[in-house]
This record gives sequence, structure tokens and C-alpha cells, in this order.
Amino acid sequence: MIPPGGIVVAMTERGYTATKEQLIKRLRRIQGQIGGIERMVADDRYCIDVLTQISAVQAALDKVALGLLDDHAHHCVLGAHDGEREEKTDELMSAVGRLMRRG
Amino acid sequence: MIPPGGIVVAMTERGYTATKEQLIKRLRRIQGQIGGIERMVADDRYCIDVLTQISAVQAALDKVALGLLDDHAHHCVLGAHDGEREEKTDELMSAVGRLMRRG
Amino acid sequence: MIPPGGIVVAMTERGYTATKEQLIKRLRRIQGQIGGIERMVADDRYCIDVLTQISAVQAALDKVALGLLDDHAHHCVLGAHDGEREEKTDELMSAVGRLMRRG
Amino acid sequence: MIPPGGIVVAMTERGYTATKEQLIKRLRRIQGQIGGIERMVADDRYCIDVLTQISAVQAALDKVALGLLDDHAHHCVLGAHDGEREEKTDELMSAVGRLMRRG
Repeated sequence: MIPPGGIVVAMTERGYTATKEQLIKRLRRIQGQIGGIERMVADDRYCIDVLTQISAVQAALDKVALGLLDDHAHHCVLGAHDGEREEKTDELMSAVGRLMRRG
Repeated sequence: MIPPGGIVVAMTERGYTATKEQLIKRLRRIQGQIGGIERMVADDRYCIDVLTQISAVQAALDKVALGLLDDHAHHCVLGAHDGEREEKTDELMSAVGRLMRRG
Repeated sequence: MIPPGGIVVAMTERGYTATKEQLIKRLRRIQGQIGGIERMVADDRYCIDVLTQISAVQAALDKVALGLLDDHAHHCVLGAHDGEREEKTDELMSAVGRLMRRG
Repeated sequence: MIPPGGIVVAMTERGYTATKEQLIKRLRRIQGQIGGIERMVADDRYCIDVLTQISAVQAALDKVALGLLDDHAHHCVLGAHDGEREEKTDELMSAVGRLMRRG
């Protein structure tokens, strides 16, 4: 069952959409990657190698963000009542703007 | 003591440069933020709120990355032997390119 | 009159949405900025100053892109027939992904 | 002859570095691309196609920016007097920060 306004457990294979379980798994992997970066810093590893790992995490977070945007667009926006769609689309666009400017 | 080619424990207050301890503290905070995002997903929180948190993490990672780039530029590049500076500058620029393209 | 699937001449003051005339005016200003950057390069101006101008152009292009995404989301997606909305949303998300990865 | 602190006419084939002539040629191509985007908007072309062109221009500008950063790092920073290198490295890092945040 899809929670109202929540993250959608989609079973389709379309694009970025991930199930809630897949999203949590991806976020856990990212958390582990950050832990690895911490250890690299603690071990005085070469800064360029640390930076390469940070780029990888940024790319993984972008993928999670695009998946969430995609869910929001397909489910929260298209699934909204007629009166709410404009507002939900504005929210979507604000989120895109924040992601493009990064914070 | 500064490890050769390692992350520099700078005591100055200049710009992005952080001590090793500060970097590890920041990375730990980011790890905690990712854990918070996981819980938001598990609790079916509104996707736009999840995305706002992801943007905040991206901005925090950008800051860590800029701090590491700054250390690399000031210490590894400028502190390198004459024969290694060009190579270390190339590495720096490749890292910048990866960060701009994110991965 | 709004062309089907085309850029919308919106008269509202909402967010990023610009009229076609405003968009063209902005793009012309950006073209002029690029011309200015060309002259800076030709005149051997300091690279950092040239880079500052490039950042300004990137920000201006992001703004145009967000305006177009916003129009697409509000008009092409929400205004589409029921059968086309999913497809138009997929197109929107692909465009967002390309902009986030820059090309 | 290389102007002091100016854009370098490098003859090597290394990485991003471009001659002044190549840079101007690239900027002119970008200016032309923006002109094409203007015409697409004027002709009410599909917003997604316009956005694809904007992504291409952003990628081209990123390439020009990386080329200039690379020149600055190799020539202005490494070629600077000992007393100026730190300052020029700070300028380089500020420019990188502006490019990552886009403006």
C-alpha cells in the first residue's frame, strides 16, 4: 500500500524509481562509504584518493535524489487532487533548484 | 607532524582548511545526516523533505571536498619537489573535474 | 495563444516562469556575456576574472533552465492528456538528470 | 610570448589546456549555441529539446572553465614568485568553489 504523500514502493522497472527497501539499502551503502572516507582521513591517505571517494558519494546521492524526484513527480504530483497539483509541482521545482545549486 | 602527501593538520584559520580532527568530525556529522535520511525514508516522510536533507548533505560534502582540495593545493602541490609539482597540479585538476561532474 | 507543447507565455508572477520575450531577452544577455568573456580572453585578462564571469553565465543559464523546467512541469505535464502525463514526466526527469550532471 | 598572469598560449597537448585561439574559438561556438537556443525559444520548440541544448552549453562552459583553471594552476600558481603562490592558490580555490556552486 502506498502511504499518502510518502515514498512509493513501486514494482515497475521504470527509470530511477526504487522501492523503499532499495532506497534504504542505497543510503546504508552511502553511509558505509562515508565511514570509509573517515578512515581514509584518519589513516592520512592521499587527499586525491579521498576526493575520488567523495565524488563517488556525490554521484550516489544524486542518483538517490533523482529517484526521489522521479517518485514525487510520478506519484505525488500526478496522483494529487486537481487542486494540489500546481502546488506539488512548485515544490518539485524548488527541490530541483536546491539540488542544482546544492543546498 | 605532517605525513608526506597526507592530509594536513593545519592550525591556521584560513578559508576551508580544517584540521584532521575537524574533517573527521564533519564526516561523522554527515554520516549521521545520512542515517537521519534513512529513517525519514523508513518512516515514509514526505519526499520533498527527504530531498531537502539530501541537498544539505551534498552542500556539506562539497565543503569537505573544497577543504581537501585547498589542503592539496597549498601543501601537496606547493610543498612538492620542483619535479613533482606539475604532476600534482594535474591530479588536482582531475579531482576538480570529477567534483564538478560529480563522479 | 499557447503553442501545443511549446514554451508558455505565462502572465503570472509565479517563481521561475518567464514569458517567451523575457526568456529571449535573458538568452541575449547571456550571449553578450559570452562575447565579453571572449574579449577578456583576447585581451589576456587575468584567468580568475574570466572564471568569475563564466560562473555568472553558468548561474544565469541555470536560471533559464529552471524556468523552462518549471514551464514544462506546469504546462506540458499537467496540461497533457491523461495518457501522456507519465511520458512527459519521464522526459522532465531525464532533463533534470542531464542538468544535474551537466550534459 | 606569455603575458604576465594572463591566459597562456600553451603548445602542449596536455589535458584541458588550450591555446588562446582555441579558447576564443570555443567561446564563439558557445555563443552560436546560445543563439540557436534563442531561435528555438522564438520558434516555440519543445522545452525538453531546449533544455538538452542548455545542458550541452553548460558542459562546454565547464570544459572552458576547467581549461582556464588548469592554466591558472600550472602557469600563474606554479610560475608565481614564492611570496605570491599562497595567494594565487587561494584565488584558484575560490574560483573552484564558485564553479562548483555555480555563481
